Amino acid sequence: MTKEDLTNCYDRIKPYVHHTPVLTSDLINKRAGAELYFKCENFQRAGAYKIRGATNAIMQLSKDQQQKGVVTHSSGNFAQALSLAAKSLQIKAYIVMPSNSPKVKKNAVLEYGGEVIECEPTIEARQTSANHIAKTTGATFIHPSNNLNVILGQGTSGLELLSEHPDLDYIVCPIGGGGLIAGTALAATYFSNHCKVIGGEPEEADDAYRSLISGKIETNSSANTIADGLRTHLGSHNFPIIKKHVKQIIRVKESEITIAMQLIWERMKIIIEPSSAVAFAAVLKDKEAFKSKKIGVIMSGGNVDVNNLPF
Amino acid sequence: MTKEDLTNCYDRIKPYVHHTPVLTSDLINKRAGAELYFKCENFQRAGAYKIRGATNAIMQLSKDQQQKGVVTHSSGNFAQALSLAAKSLQIKAYIVMPSNSPKVKKNAVLEYGGEVIECEPTIEARQTSANHIAKTTGATFIHPSNNLNVILGQGTSGLELLSEHPDLDYIVCPIGGGGLIAGTALAATYFSNHCKVIGGEPEEADDAYRSLISGKIETNSSANTIADGLRTHLGSHNFPIIKKHVKQIIRVKESEITIAMQLIWERMKIIIEPSSAVAFAAVLKDKEAFKSKKIGVIMSGGNVDVNNLPF
Repeated sequence: MTKEDLTNCYDRIKPYVHHTPVLTSDLINKRAGAELYFKCENFQRAGAYKIRGATNAIMQLSKDQQQKGVVTHSSGNFAQALSLAAKSLQIKAYIVMPSNSPKVKKNAVLEYGGEVIECEPTIEARQTSANHIAKTTGATFIHPSNNLNVILGQGTSGLELLSEHPDLDYIVCPIGGGGLIAGTALAATYFSNHCKVIGGEPEEADDAYRSLISGKIETNSSANTIADGLRTHLGSHNFPIIKKHVKQIIRVKESEITIAMQLIWERMKIIIEPSSAVAFAAVLKDKEAFKSKKIGVIMSGGNVDVNNLPF
Repeated sequence: MTKEDLTNCYDRIKPYVHHTPVLTSDLINKRAGAELYFKCENFQRAGAYKIRGATNAIMQLSKDQQQKGVVTHSSGNFAQALSLAAKSLQIKAYIVMPSNSPKVKKNAVLEYGGEVIECEPTIEARQTSANHIAKTTGATFIHPSNNLNVILGQGTSGLELLSEHPDLDYIVCPIGGGGLIAGTALAATYFSNHCKVIGGEPEEADDAYRSLISGKIETNSSANTIADGLRTHLGSHNFPIIKKHVKQIIRVKESEITIAMQLIWERMKIIIEPSSAVAFAAVLKDKEAFKSKKIGVIMSGGNVDVNNLPF
């Protein structure tokens, strides 16, 4: 994917997504010993960066495809994002969700206009159900992270960040399914001279870290992390981009995620979800390496169940 | 106090306080049936609007007075605000705090450079202790809300809000000790044509509501509200301003405060304290009266113990 692909994508989706603010905090900078620029995708529509990729993927479909709608399986932010993106573009969204998904998540999808289809809570059932819907309705399946148009869309957050702060030394972002970091890596490649993209990943779901070492896509046998957005693994479309452009992934412990999250809440007075805290925790983890550097940190989202916090 | 007093105050404190952002939310507007403009003092230095008044009060002291420092008694936001304002202006701050104040609050004051003096947890002990310090050190006592220079400082938040949105129909703000609403009322009087200032107050500490009815300063025999910043009563300096310029106080139930707070957290992804939620709860309470109006809501602060939330 070229620089022009990314620029075109940005121009395409701009009317449908927020240009999110970049926040800074003297206190946090002091604590980190570096200059941090927080890209606040927690303020994005539907509360996470995911709407960028969802919007681009839908807009790249043909008129005929759009008329038949889109389908995905997700119990997280992509479910809400695809629903809202589809609503904005006046097309239909089918969202396959495991039957044990929290009611609050189902309601969020319904509120954004998505149609919820429940299935057994297994990966196989989710895929079978999504395939069935695609077949019977003609809807196009949109993968939450392993889709080139989704990856381009997610890269527009980094593009915005670099357009305001072109001299960043690093961008650190969470790594889950790989869509965000692949897109961000493309943005850094095309829109900066020297900015390196680094991933933050929970130790409890360090498939991407292991994938970079082994050179093939690894999975997690378990994923006991509060960063629920990062339990997934990389895909065939984003892994080659990540392999080429991302040279480092920093793993963090659960306690480090919680501490980082609480620090942001208390000091910056903004709500970020655990997955976002992983990126900031990674910066705190490797303070020596980041000392006095200019670092963009992508706050991927702010969808948290405030009735069930880790602190 | 004149328009010029307020303008001069603003110019004076500007280098020492943040110009806080005004945020909006389509979802919240839809819910409220009105156009809301949230003035985010939760993003202010030390996490609340209080630093505005504290800074102004200190700057209006003579050089000789400044050299001897300032003293106040507070277990809340003003303690932190005065400490930080004093630190920025390189003077000494003595903070009298009840011995049962949470450790986290004492630590916050210490972190901002204040000197903590503990006393018995009664109003009398607090005053005696503060008087003693003033006498022995020569420090000037600064009241958190009943001080004309503090009131002017607190009014600069409304001034900023009206300078960006001069056509507001209302500004709603929480009412506790009366400093914020008195200052805001002055700002509305001098910097708008028709903007009315309305107070939001917990039913459980509705002294200001009763004071407006009786025409004299009423107190609370109990104050069982989670809006801990609003448990205090009005004072001789701010009450005349409030009586003259504030025509309405809307009282809200504890459950309404919690619901309003959670709504802001979940939808706007920002952290506000219960006292701030009182103002928004007041808007939701009287939806009919506010229908389709342009309303400024002062989010007074964001200092919350995230380990002890009401939801």
